[in-house]
Amino acid sequence: MLTKEGCLIRRTRLWAAVPSEVEWLLIADPRHVKYLANFWIPPFSFSGGERALLLLERDGGKAAGKATLLGDNFALKSSMCEAFVDDQVPATWYDHQHSVTNRDHVLFQAVSQVANKLKGRIGAIESEWLPTGALDAIGDGDIRLSNISIGTELRSLRRCKEPDEIALLEECMKATDAGQAWAREHIKAGMTELDVYRGVQSASLQAAGRVGLIYGDFRVTNGTSPKAGGLPTQHILQNGELFILDYSVVLEGYRSDFTNVIAVGTPSSEQREVFSICQRAMAAAEKVLKAGARAADVFAAASAQYKPSSFVTKGYDHLTHHAGHGIGLAHPEAPILVPQSEDVLVAGDVLTLEPGLYVDGVGGVRIEHNYLITETGYRRLSNHTIALD
Amino acid sequence: MLTKEGCLIRRTRLWAAVPSEVEWLLIADPRHVKYLANFWIPPFSFSGGERALLLLERDGGKAAGKATLLGDNFALKSSMCEAFVDDQVPATWYDHQHSVTNRDHVLFQAVSQVANKLKGRIGAIESEWLPTGALDAIGDGDIRLSNISIGTELRSLRRCKEPDEIALLEECMKATDAGQAWAREHIKAGMTELDVYRGVQSASLQAAGRVGLIYGDFRVTNGTSPKAGGLPTQHILQNGELFILDYSVVLEGYRSDFTNVIAVGTPSSEQREVFSICQRAMAAAEKVLKAGARAADVFAAASAQYKPSSFVTKGYDHLTHHAGHGIGLAHPEAPILVPQSEDVLVAGDVLTLEPGLYVDGVGGVRIEHNYLITETGYRRLSNHTIALD
Repeated sequence: MLTKEGCLIRRTRLWAAVPSEVEWLLIADPRHVKYLANFWIPPFSFSGGERALLLLERDGGKAAGKATLLGDNFALKSSMCEAFVDDQVPATWYDHQHSVTNRDHVLFQAVSQVANKLKGRIGAIESEWLPTGALDAIGDGDIRLSNISIGTELRSLRRCKEPDEIALLEECMKATDAGQAWAREHIKAGMTELDVYRGVQSASLQAAGRVGLIYGDFRVTNGTSPKAGGLPTQHILQNGELFILDYSVVLEGYRSDFTNVIAVGTPSSEQREVFSICQRAMAAAEKVLKAGARAADVFAAASAQYKPSSFVTKGYDHLTHHAGHGIGLAHPEAPILVPQSEDVLVAGDVLTLEPGLYVDGVGGVRIEHNYLITETGYRRLSNHTIALD
Repeated sequence: MLTKEGCLIRRTRLWAAVPSEVEWLLIADPRHVKYLANFWIPPFSFSGGERALLLLERDGGKAAGKATLLGDNFALKSSMCEAFVDDQVPATWYDHQHSVTNRDHVLFQAVSQVANKLKGRIGAIESEWLPTGALDAIGDGDIRLSNISIGTELRSLRRCKEPDEIALLEECMKATDAGQAWAREHIKAGMTELDVYRGVQSASLQAAGRVGLIYGDFRVTNGTSPKAGGLPTQHILQNGELFILDYSVVLEGYRSDFTNVIAVGTPSSEQREVFSICQRAMAAAEKVLKAGARAADVFAAASAQYKPSSFVTKGYDHLTHHAGHGIGLAHPEAPILVPQSEDVLVAGDVLTLEPGLYVDGVGGVRIEHNYLITETGYRRLSNHTIALD
């Protein structure tokens, strides 16, 4: 989980990025409530999809300011982890004696309890997620709002991960490594794609030691359908197919995202060549990775490796999708490794490299690792074996 | 999945409940976008947590009106099922050539594309979920808003399930039955609670034939901790403990919620007595279930069964939590079976009965079935075996 120290550092960084006249911030995107206060209602909860809001106030004595969670009494109890805030304002939604009312309106009652102290002071709301009903509960005629985009500001801050975020991402990576190892050992003709999902999920959660979310591509490709992707189906694996296992383990909203491609049966020589092109692309891109590198140059390094192959005459002469992208509380997020990207890598970025090649008559291949960008290069976070067989 | 016919019926019911001067509705709660248009981004998606908005317009020729989905180009592609709408307005967020901007702002661009046709006509927004940024994108000075609470209206409509919703709930039930059967067969001393979760999850998804979400109570109780609940831990099951398996399978937002309690090893005679009190409470409550029954009376029928037992002298003389509650796109929802509830059951309600008793020195027991309420009684939707051993 995130730490109190990490949350305070992130709140301090946020205040430093906000104009000095702004005295309070109302945060509404659940990802940002997690990021700044460690409050997180997982989707695997009866309160999944419910929310708390985070009120941040400047406090002359503390660089991180003051933090208050607002929510209904059950939502505030449904966080997976301890929230690091100075105060909580719960409004009663359910008391086990009376029926329930509209749960969202109860959240707004919590907001109205803090409305008085916002009036007359300049503040900013996360307009990307704050419901209009919450603004009504403050009384929007009485408050003075700055027009900064908190959502955009936070997306920018999120790129540079703090140590507690990296530790959580490493938990995701370790669990994903275990699921990848299970797949390499067990994938064979006769299983369904859903069987693979269930096995990978079980192995990943065993390694995580707790419940998390598993998503990604759990599909086979083959000569007639080299670009298949998405959630698993009941398709039965056939010898000659290639299983692209491109998946994420999400713990508390943070996620890994890495890939191996596993041959069902013995891979053909053409499948091996497609695989080796992807390996060369990944190795070339890795050489470019470091703070200050242009995302477009990382793409170019990977894409250039598609030229010297026997598939070039058939038009497969470049990488047809991104070479990789940032990950963290969302997927994909900046930096995006594409030809026209103006992103520049920064130390603290966590990103993927995922070259792929999808050849009619042969099948699809994609491989992927995850990296933490440093001033001098990178530290690889994923440790799975990438191999066809 | 929900059907086109079902979505059209629900939109027709919604328009019938809205004042006639209201010409358009902007729906924002993801549960309601599913309910009315079958658009659903699962949490197990790279777009998990992203949204589409649903614009409904009156249309003289059609009782269900016109429906338009608004979203970024990747969100609109991330629905698990076909959306039943007349039009889609995607705004480009990611093109695999350029980096990405704030994804929420792209959603608002889609909103601004339909703003002109809303101006000057009376409409209503789902203020519980519509972000203030989306209202800004319409230009809130230019539109005329009714102050009806769409969120509350839809919660009321949701109680009476249509046939497609019941079919989807039955899929959830069947998958949950399978997980319960796995648990009865496999639970034994030496496993961890997390092992039970992984096995139940795998069996449930195999029966569902697709990916879904599993949540609930996966904990053992014992004499010193009779009220334990929540997600599984690494606790190792000991003989003499009682495993309360109270869990939900969520498919496309719809969910089951039913329970068995399984003795680890051989149950004691006291544990058997606690179990039989819960069985009597469930049977008594079942006799009251039908459209028109008062929720409070269902509670009273269950709670009265706690009196004739050897635990009464220790104070265990009534049911200490709800006797059950509605389920569907949320959990719990009306009707709530508690002493002060003013809810009255209606045909189409899907609800649980879940009597429990938690005795110091003995352990905790809870059992639970799910029911569809009819004019004459109920149809039980869960078919698992409820037994201690």
